[in-house]
Amino acid sequence: MSRVIVASVGYTKVGDHWDKSILDLAVEASHKALKPYPNIKPDVIIVGNMFSSQSSKQEHLGALLASALNLVNTPAFKVEAACASGGVAFNIGYHKVRSGEARSALVVGVEKMRDLDVAEVSLALSMAESAEYTQFIGASFLSLNAMLARLYQETYNVTRDELSAFPVIAHSNAATAEHAQFRKPVSIEDVSRSALVSDPLRLLDCAPIGDGAAAALLASEELLDKSEDEVVVLSSKISTNIFSVYEREDMLRFDATKDAASKAFLEAGISVSDVDVLEVHDAFSVTAALSVEAMGFSKVGEGAKDAAAGIYSPKGRYPALTFGGLKGRGHPVGATGLYQIAELWLQLKGRGGKNQIDKCRVGVAQNIGGVDTTSAVSVLARR
Amino acid sequence: MSRVIVASVGYTKVGDHWDKSILDLAVEASHKALKPYPNIKPDVIIVGNMFSSQSSKQEHLGALLASALNLVNTPAFKVEAACASGGVAFNIGYHKVRSGEARSALVVGVEKMRDLDVAEVSLALSMAESAEYTQFIGASFLSLNAMLARLYQETYNVTRDELSAFPVIAHSNAATAEHAQFRKPVSIEDVSRSALVSDPLRLLDCAPIGDGAAAALLASEELLDKSEDEVVVLSSKISTNIFSVYEREDMLRFDATKDAASKAFLEAGISVSDVDVLEVHDAFSVTAALSVEAMGFSKVGEGAKDAAAGIYSPKGRYPALTFGGLKGRGHPVGATGLYQIAELWLQLKGRGGKNQIDKCRVGVAQNIGGVDTTSAVSVLARR
Repeated sequence: MSRVIVASVGYTKVGDHWDKSILDLAVEASHKALKPYPNIKPDVIIVGNMFSSQSSKQEHLGALLASALNLVNTPAFKVEAACASGGVAFNIGYHKVRSGEARSALVVGVEKMRDLDVAEVSLALSMAESAEYTQFIGASFLSLNAMLARLYQETYNVTRDELSAFPVIAHSNAATAEHAQFRKPVSIEDVSRSALVSDPLRLLDCAPIGDGAAAALLASEELLDKSEDEVVVLSSKISTNIFSVYEREDMLRFDATKDAASKAFLEAGISVSDVDVLEVHDAFSVTAALSVEAMGFSKVGEGAKDAAAGIYSPKGRYPALTFGGLKGRGHPVGATGLYQIAELWLQLKGRGGKNQIDKCRVGVAQNIGGVDTTSAVSVLARR
Repeated sequence: MSRVIVASVGYTKVGDHWDKSILDLAVEASHKALKPYPNIKPDVIIVGNMFSSQSSKQEHLGALLASALNLVNTPAFKVEAACASGGVAFNIGYHKVRSGEARSALVVGVEKMRDLDVAEVSLALSMAESAEYTQFIGASFLSLNAMLARLYQETYNVTRDELSAFPVIAHSNAATAEHAQFRKPVSIEDVSRSALVSDPLRLLDCAPIGDGAAAALLASEELLDKSEDEVVVLSSKISTNIFSVYEREDMLRFDATKDAASKAFLEAGISVSDVDVLEVHDAFSVTAALSVEAMGFSKVGEGAKDAAAGIYSPKGRYPALTFGGLKGRGHPVGATGLYQIAELWLQLKGRGGKNQIDKCRVGVAQNIGGVDTTSAVSVLARR
């Protein structure tokens, strides 16, 4: 088995890209990732994307991108696992290089969301849930997470202001991140008093809608000239949960994330305390809280409280959402998993600029689809 | 590296399944594939599908199927490469077992098409082509292939009746295949005089629209009790072509298929003459002809003529479309690549019933997306 290096990354700014097609975005991120290694022609191209058919009347993104990059004959395909599409694409690319099937892999996440109106986006996102049950009764993703937030607050006595802590961290970090969608700090009060969208979730509890693409060029150690300070992938695991949140014994347990994280940490040979930087899937404030709990960074019921206590702030024990997370950097759904990888890469390379975390050697990315229905957890390290 | 066995297969009849959801179809095929091996819990589930979002307002099919099969925590995702989604999903599953990442993989192809009206299906299929160019000017898949058929006929002096040969073979074989959509033989005259749909393509040149699901349980040799007459995967390769057919130097060259087939045959250690049974992607009569030429079974320009001469008939040199192919068995697009694998399995196991080909030891499946934009070629053998 080969050691897998994240050789380089590339990404677009997240936000409104009215002048660019979904292919333009994917090409831009890909070119940036490929540029530092002109001699590497990827052996495989994997595209993570959720709903290009709805946003752009376009499928077949794998071959479309391969052809646009003038990489004809390269095996290429799209992977979809709702909002975890990017994290799953990365997982597949990692294993292809690790096994030696490919010496290099270009993994690209891309989503165009702003071309859809709000109802269309809501429908597109709801396809991550059961069409026959959840979607049929009109439960949107937002409303499902709102029920989760209420249950979380009531079960663990989490205050409104504690729930606001993750969005505050996200926006604070996004303020200095050039590629972030919302570069504006917000206060606890701003979040707690923002417009109610689905009780108890408020506008600033929720990740925004945006366009974007992010890419990573993975290569086997043998393919690269030996050099120091490379970012290596220590592990990457996918797991799934009982499909719909209402079918689960305990709706506040993110068992897919728990399973993927425990397997990823075991294979990487790390424990929670080894982690220096953490990109969690903060699609909603409550999602971030349940995610850090499932991975063991916080005790059950204490994720939001820990965030309020500063544990997940840049100077805290586990700096998280270091370029703004889904809430601040933005959440172009199929691309999010690759933005997380790109951001870990920046941190581990010491290229985080104003957002650089001190002494960064081990990073974790957690990317989920549905309400923790699919979870992809990857561990990266600077060697 | 592990030797990979196709342990078992399962599939639904192709056709109208008004009473079944896309999940119902995937579950039915999966249950049939899993049933002979109750002790094998697949390490990964891979779903090939093109447009469940349009047909069923459903994405996230990987986790949806894992949960429905009570295989929670199993890594699961969907793969999309237009009409090659099934073949590509099989390729990914094969490599996961071969590399040892998984000991077993459940690969399922599924598509629900009949819930869409003809205009909707046409739009969904056209997403395999460029939304910005081909689709925008109104070129449907049918019209693109019609242009190809005209060029093919004029370039190589192929008569109307020669073009009709592949559909005749397909329907003749489908007549005795229980899972086929159209169990009715047709004559050369029937095809050549069927309704014109896009000149020169006629109704019986074109694969039909239907619902269906097919599945294969792949397992490493180590996982199974040693036994004889297993179906092993000798190789599986994906390649891509310049995206749109009009951009290519020679539109009649299926270079993705040529590349995938030559690599697959090389890795399998076989040559064309070793092949006993052949499942080609006969989405249109002309597609079958260009496919057998690209793989080297016929000389350039002679694919349709060879079919007319009986080369691809059950008693011919290279029996093809042995259960009806896309034209007769049907073409639920994301499922087609797995139907091909299931049919090769039946032939190699000697379970082909009335459709059994004599002395069947090596089989090839070729599954394409777009106009040979993506091609997946796999070689299976009885050991």
